Amino acid sequence: MSGPNGTFFRSRWVDAPRGVRELDAGALPAGFRAAGLACGIKPSRRLDIGVVACDDDAATSAALFTRNALVAAAVELSREAALDRLRAVVVNSGNANVATEEQGREVARAMIAAVAEELGIDGARVGVASTGVIGVPMDLAVVAEGARRAAAELSESGGEAFSEAILTSDRWPKRASLEVQLSAGPVRLSAQAKGAGMISPSFATMLCFVQTDAAVDATTLDRLLRAAVERSFERVSVDGQLSTNDSVFAIAGGRSGVTVAAGTEDERVFAAALDALLRQLAVEMVADGEGAERVARLVVRGAVEAVDPVARAVANSPLVKCALHGKDPNWGRILQAAGQAVPDADLSQLSLFIEGIHVANAGGAMPLPDEALRRLEAGMAGDEVEMRLDLAAAGEEAEIFFCDLGHGYVSFNSEYTT
Amino acid sequence: MSGPNGTFFRSRWVDAPRGVRELDAGALPAGFRAAGLACGIKPSRRLDIGVVACDDDAATSAALFTRNALVAAAVELSREAALDRLRAVVVNSGNANVATEEQGREVARAMIAAVAEELGIDGARVGVASTGVIGVPMDLAVVAEGARRAAAELSESGGEAFSEAILTSDRWPKRASLEVQLSAGPVRLSAQAKGAGMISPSFATMLCFVQTDAAVDATTLDRLLRAAVERSFERVSVDGQLSTNDSVFAIAGGRSGVTVAAGTEDERVFAAALDALLRQLAVEMVADGEGAERVARLVVRGAVEAVDPVARAVANSPLVKCALHGKDPNWGRILQAAGQAVPDADLSQLSLFIEGIHVANAGGAMPLPDEALRRLEAGMAGDEVEMRLDLAAAGEEAEIFFCDLGHGYVSFNSEYTT
Repeated sequence: MSGPNGTFFRSRWVDAPRGVRELDAGALPAGFRAAGLACGIKPSRRLDIGVVACDDDAATSAALFTRNALVAAAVELSREAALDRLRAVVVNSGNANVATEEQGREVARAMIAAVAEELGIDGARVGVASTGVIGVPMDLAVVAEGARRAAAELSESGGEAFSEAILTSDRWPKRASLEVQLSAGPVRLSAQAKGAGMISPSFATMLCFVQTDAAVDATTLDRLLRAAVERSFERVSVDGQLSTNDSVFAIAGGRSGVTVAAGTEDERVFAAALDALLRQLAVEMVADGEGAERVARLVVRGAVEAVDPVARAVANSPLVKCALHGKDPNWGRILQAAGQAVPDADLSQLSLFIEGIHVANAGGAMPLPDEALRRLEAGMAGDEVEMRLDLAAAGEEAEIFFCDLGHGYVSFNSEYTT
Repeated sequence: MSGPNGTFFRSRWVDAPRGVRELDAGALPAGFRAAGLACGIKPSRRLDIGVVACDDDAATSAALFTRNALVAAAVELSREAALDRLRAVVVNSGNANVATEEQGREVARAMIAAVAEELGIDGARVGVASTGVIGVPMDLAVVAEGARRAAAELSESGGEAFSEAILTSDRWPKRASLEVQLSAGPVRLSAQAKGAGMISPSFATMLCFVQTDAAVDATTLDRLLRAAVERSFERVSVDGQLSTNDSVFAIAGGRSGVTVAAGTEDERVFAAALDALLRQLAVEMVADGEGAERVARLVVRGAVEAVDPVARAVANSPLVKCALHGKDPNWGRILQAAGQAVPDADLSQLSLFIEGIHVANAGGAMPLPDEALRRLEAGMAGDEVEMRLDLAAAGEEAEIFFCDLGHGYVSFNSEYTT
């Protein structure tokens, strides 16, 4: 996947932030090292374990996890870690380590211990994440040895391998590295993410690792991360399914010597860069949805209590998603899904726009001149389709990104077995 | 579709009620007449308009409608009718008459007026229903003339044509006729239904018409209908989508001379027959789900506030539905969907059974002997797959019927256009 001008910020819905220079996508901020290797979890022998670590003892961090009641051993253990001062995260792919009981927790503990020992840091400062199939036990010795080797092989150029070691059904790696110009000098900001299925419009339905060499206190970092996640991973849906493993980790090392302090213009610039970074990664997850061919953004406007349920109902409607797959501007299904979400709402004033073309209101289809029909047809066939549903003339807005439902999703998910 | 012993009650989940004899599926109770014909709504020239009517002026009725905020003109007008004493219902297929504004209401009004005039009854005693595509205007003259012709052609043997005139994407008609033995003599009970997509686990996500020649007061009929719908159409999901048009109408004519009075044993027998009738029709809708190959029933047991959300989350998970399509006992996806529905629940005691085989608990897969694995494999490949998820050892139960998500659904819904 490459954008119109080769930049990372290739979605029409993500503005490249000002004062930001793109670096090599796998580059890490100063003071960070990473590694990714194959330790034998994936039968395919592809990369399946990775570590990213910060060499600065003053590092601060923030982390967010899935809201599913059933969580991976990694999520259980990470929640017990020193989440405001993590130094490293170890991740395996190919096995979710969920519903694996005490043995699963032992494996996750061994991953942490191997990395902590190899790096000579407190185990409480190591986070852990997993992604893959549910309910299959892992071989503790194999995984612990993989974690130890990855920690031993950490390098400044390991970001690329790390970003590949976290993938499962993804068709391409999702990563970027930015240089952000702040008042006292430049800082670096990088992230690696994965996610293609079991992705829901609910926080953190994937894995994402963020690094910066800016100095950011843990409280500020937590606030900035939450805000960016709200506008990115919280607003996407591949299939409405909230995973058991979703985790976002951010570590700030401070090696640049530049501080991002709360309430400053620098904080605003840094936040804008983080926001654009996670937003583009989130859109890429949807674009890489299992079997997906295109992404749609729907913006819903209306009463505050209606906009989010309506956006989610439309994004998760298999009828709407099949229509998107068929390049069909099927406004009837969009209105039906909206009506289902808000049974008591007055929808008599609604208006639906696709690619800026007013296609329908409560009274039905708008008569469209041939030129508009041609634009609509071309728009529906694009990689990114823009939709707006006004429930009322004014009000709050909620946006959501979703993909089509195609044969690829069915094939992948009816043939992929436990 | 035919059952193991050729009876209507062919689902393993529907017990044939005692004291009930099956009649020819298209037979109507005494005093009822019906018709179905092609008036030109469907380009295919298949039957697209039908009327069912009761010749007894003392007829009572009950009706239930969709909860979608966006409703068809037919639903709007039916809600204004004399719902406790309907004599007739006129139905068109091939066009949902939704989002068609005042012109759509004019069409629905004309359908009612044509039938009322032809039958010489008050228009307030005529219900109306529509099903088909959303947002396409109908030709008032064509439809009104069709309704008039159908009313003119009513006959005692018209039940079969009527049941075919209400179909859209259904692969087979859904209908049955029963003779129910009550203490004072036999009564007849018949029903015709349609539904294959845009079917959600929420009341009345389809059309169903029920007739009986028992005498049932309107209050009792309403109570019996609601109870039966609760256990049938409320418990099914093809795609989680609540339609704009769903309607259930029941008319009791009284011609048998046998009364079903509230609180009697006769009421219990009649209610059991109605319950089994609607339950089998509901299961058939799921079995006829667009592209569906098999039906699963999931029974969830646990805390009262958890069982229904969990049942619905599992039934609507595209991952679970794809696994069902692939005959894959993918318990991990079932647990993930359950956990998503009840974020704060303690799931440490859960147990999942498929075809009575204990396949998993919170600690992962149960070790299964080869014989059990073979039974599990055979069960997953069957037409009807039974699942039970115990969130706790005791508690309330909720059941749901759902179908698989296969390529047929995607093909049908990405090629079927507005």
